[in-house]
Amino acid sequence: MVLLERRFLVVNFKVYDSAFGSRALELAREASRLSSRLSKVRVILAVPALIASKILTIYNDVYLQHVDPVGFGAYTGFTPVDALKVEGIRGTIVNHSEHKVTYRDLAFIISRAKLLGLEVLACADTPEEAMAVALLDPTMVAVEPPELIGSGIPVSKAKPEVITSSVEAVRRVSNIPVLAGAGISEALDAIRAIELGASGVLVASAIMKSKSPELSLRNFAEALERT
Amino acid sequence: MVLLERRFLVVNFKVYDSAFGSRALELAREASRLSSRLSKVRVILAVPALIASKILTIYNDVYLQHVDPVGFGAYTGFTPVDALKVEGIRGTIVNHSEHKVTYRDLAFIISRAKLLGLEVLACADTPEEAMAVALLDPTMVAVEPPELIGSGIPVSKAKPEVITSSVEAVRRVSNIPVLAGAGISEALDAIRAIELGASGVLVASAIMKSKSPELSLRNFAEALERT
Amino acid sequence: MVLLERRFLVVNFKVYDSAFGSRALELAREASRLSSRLSKVRVILAVPALIASKILTIYNDVYLQHVDPVGFGAYTGFTPVDALKVEGIRGTIVNHSEHKVTYRDLAFIISRAKLLGLEVLACADTPEEAMAVALLDPTMVAVEPPELIGSGIPVSKAKPEVITSSVEAVRRVSNIPVLAGAGISEALDAIRAIELGASGVLVASAIMKSKSPELSLRNFAEALERT
Amino acid sequence: MVLLERRFLVVNFKVYDSAFGSRALELAREASRLSSRLSKVRVILAVPALIASKILTIYNDVYLQHVDPVGFGAYTGFTPVDALKVEGIRGTIVNHSEHKVTYRDLAFIISRAKLLGLEVLACADTPEEAMAVALLDPTMVAVEPPELIGSGIPVSKAKPEVITSSVEAVRRVSNIPVLAGAGISEALDAIRAIELGASGVLVASAIMKSKSPELSLRNFAEALERT
Repeated sequence: MVLLERRFLVVNFKVYDSAFGSRALELAREASRLSSRLSKVRVILAVPALIASKILTIYNDVYLQHVDPVGFGAYTGFTPVDALKVEGIRGTIVNHSEHKVTYRDLAFIISRAKLLGLEVLACADTPEEAMAVALLDPTMVAVEPPELIGSGIPVSKAKPEVITSSVEAVRRVSNIPVLAGAGISEALDAIRAIELGASGVLVASAIMKSKSPELSLRNFAEALERT
Repeated sequence: MVLLERRFLVVNFKVYDSAFGSRALELAREASRLSSRLSKVRVILAVPALIASKILTIYNDVYLQHVDPVGFGAYTGFTPVDALKVEGIRGTIVNHSEHKVTYRDLAFIISRAKLLGLEVLACADTPEEAMAVALLDPTMVAVEPPELIGSGIPVSKAKPEVITSSVEAVRRVSNIPVLAGAGISEALDAIRAIELGASGVLVASAIMKSKSPELSLRNFAEALERT
Repeated sequence: MVLLERRFLVVNFKVYDSAFGSRALELAREASRLSSRLSKVRVILAVPALIASKILTIYNDVYLQHVDPVGFGAYTGFTPVDALKVEGIRGTIVNHSEHKVTYRDLAFIISRAKLLGLEVLACADTPEEAMAVALLDPTMVAVEPPELIGSGIPVSKAKPEVITSSVEAVRRVSNIPVLAGAGISEALDAIRAIELGASGVLVASAIMKSKSPELSLRNFAEALERT
Repeated sequence: MVLLERRFLVVNFKVYDSAFGSRALELAREASRLSSRLSKVRVILAVPALIASKILTIYNDVYLQHVDPVGFGAYTGFTPVDALKVEGIRGTIVNHSEHKVTYRDLAFIISRAKLLGLEVLACADTPEEAMAVALLDPTMVAVEPPELIGSGIPVSKAKPEVITSSVEAVRRVSNIPVLAGAGISEALDAIRAIELGASGVLVASAIMKSKSPELSLRNFAEALERT
């Protein structure tokens, strides 16, 4: 299946200091350069809401890191799903390990996003949760064992069975791509994740806290292109 | 005192549909035009994080509507106080009736903001809460009886004693400006608030849901200029 | 299968005024009388934590309405799963429509409860959520469309397909009993739920807000006994 | 003033394992014995909701550790203020460092409790928060620097100025007793707190995690009686 051969490299900027200001823009420029010569890999930048419109002037495959389960209205300080559509944001991460929502809210967000033609990458801690969120038919699922996030210990090495089980669990109910994340530190970890059945990786600190985020991004993208 | 003679018109865009896209930009253009000819009134636009950087290209007196009690780091989907500094945002509303935080979080946010030279408009439901938040020394306090927010029944008419008591309560501990909000529908309501001792108003639906937000903004600003 | 022929009548006391004081105790006495002569129906009283130990002196099939995802420790004002074991409570409702938790917390609670030999009735809004929570292997699942809760419009009449779809969805992954709830007003609604494939019902206002909670409880229990 | 000469010893059971089962009852028995011979010290046991009615059969000066900002109604798994009245609980802790609430919720809880003749011990992290919560006129305020809670480093030794400043700040708006807590490890720490102007102490781990909670309770109570 063509869909499953696509590779996804989702860069979660989180809100590290490198996620703002000129460094964020430089990373977006590198993503733009890379994308023009990648055929297999789709690079998605999941950026803070505060810089999304700036990033969009440089690179157009942009997600938010969270969205709130509301429509337009009197919700001071929240981000409605509909706002992404108006502002040209392609999609959003939801239910990240650092920003968990209830299943009810997840259902609202995914259903509203689909109605509007927006994408949703739903995160999960475990294979069970991966299957649970897949039932709501998001665009993609990413599984990340919380204890490995930011640890530098790659899930693809420390808990390869989480990846294989998640892919298997999701396949029982859906054909959507399954990404792996947590502790992904170098290109080799991403390649292993693909070998274990993932369609891509969700990477944060390995790029954002790197001495050269651009170089790190390039390494991951090129490695995935060759898988 | 000069500080207290200043008038504040804080426009809370909330996340109405008019708070995004071209309508948001037009309102910012009007704020820009107005500011060049106002001497007494400071117009602050409290905008969704998602459009803040776009608004900043047009108008520079911009607040967020909320900020999270974190610094830079691994906080997917949250907005650190420090990010405002990097992105050139002047300040933020916090503890709005639609986005309440604990006193502990409020204390963190205000103290971090002050360290960074950022402003904070802290909201309160009652005179007691106005005094409570004033103890933390934010830049301004706004009092808004929750039951009048969005009601079209102006606080300055329906509960004038909330304004006078709040000003009095805040004065026991601080000299910061006290704004009034909730149900402020027309310029006259803003004038009454000033007469009751407020230094300005916090307005949302009367502008954002108006047929002509620009005209409504102008009316409020010009009325306050004459007080 | 014997397990599926069992009928469950779970009475959610919520925190209505009738859920405390002498009325709560009288209802427990009626449950005790009924249980001695019912062979097919299991009556579970889901009571406020505050009265659980009093109820236990009268009736022993008692659940809490919620439990927190913590063990023993420094968690002022929360209820650890382990405390139920020590205090002789048989189990707990979790993820009720009025008290939603994240999937992560649900996973913690169910896994801890199972380790301790405690039961968990996990609630769901929809067939998708019913299947999602069933993946975590709780003791039972109850599906309740939120818009019908407390409405007096029985799910078994207004949305029979929610019951049939939920049973079907849960059966894909588990053999646990599926209960139905929301708007269940009279014995006939409970019978219909059974006919649609449910193993029992979750009832609140129809009993707790009845002029005679005891009579209402008896009617439900006897009707289920005859199914 | 007589009121200020009263000494308060509030034992926060938290949800340590010793807060449930027979150990909790034994501690209540010791409190009962002590109270019959203390004239100056009031011993309040702040117990988990789950065991409150059992404790009440032994000792009658009982608080909960938290209450929810709701009245009777359809609030599955929450504890309404009104329920305390019906069940004979004298009062509640609110806004503990481990269970923070918004100022709005605190205002609701205190005002509802007062209407019902119930007591509220409102907690605070800092002198500012102590004054802020005192504005709502609870029965007592307790100040506890969060970083010292459970540390074994007594606030009365490590941060005596927090106690003196809190008493001073509260006195600007109210005459209610101010308690001190956090790290209070032995009777001497309690005596120091009184010397610094507190009317009592809030103690948890020093009693609940002691080899002999009864002995520890007795030591604190007798020391306070002599102040």
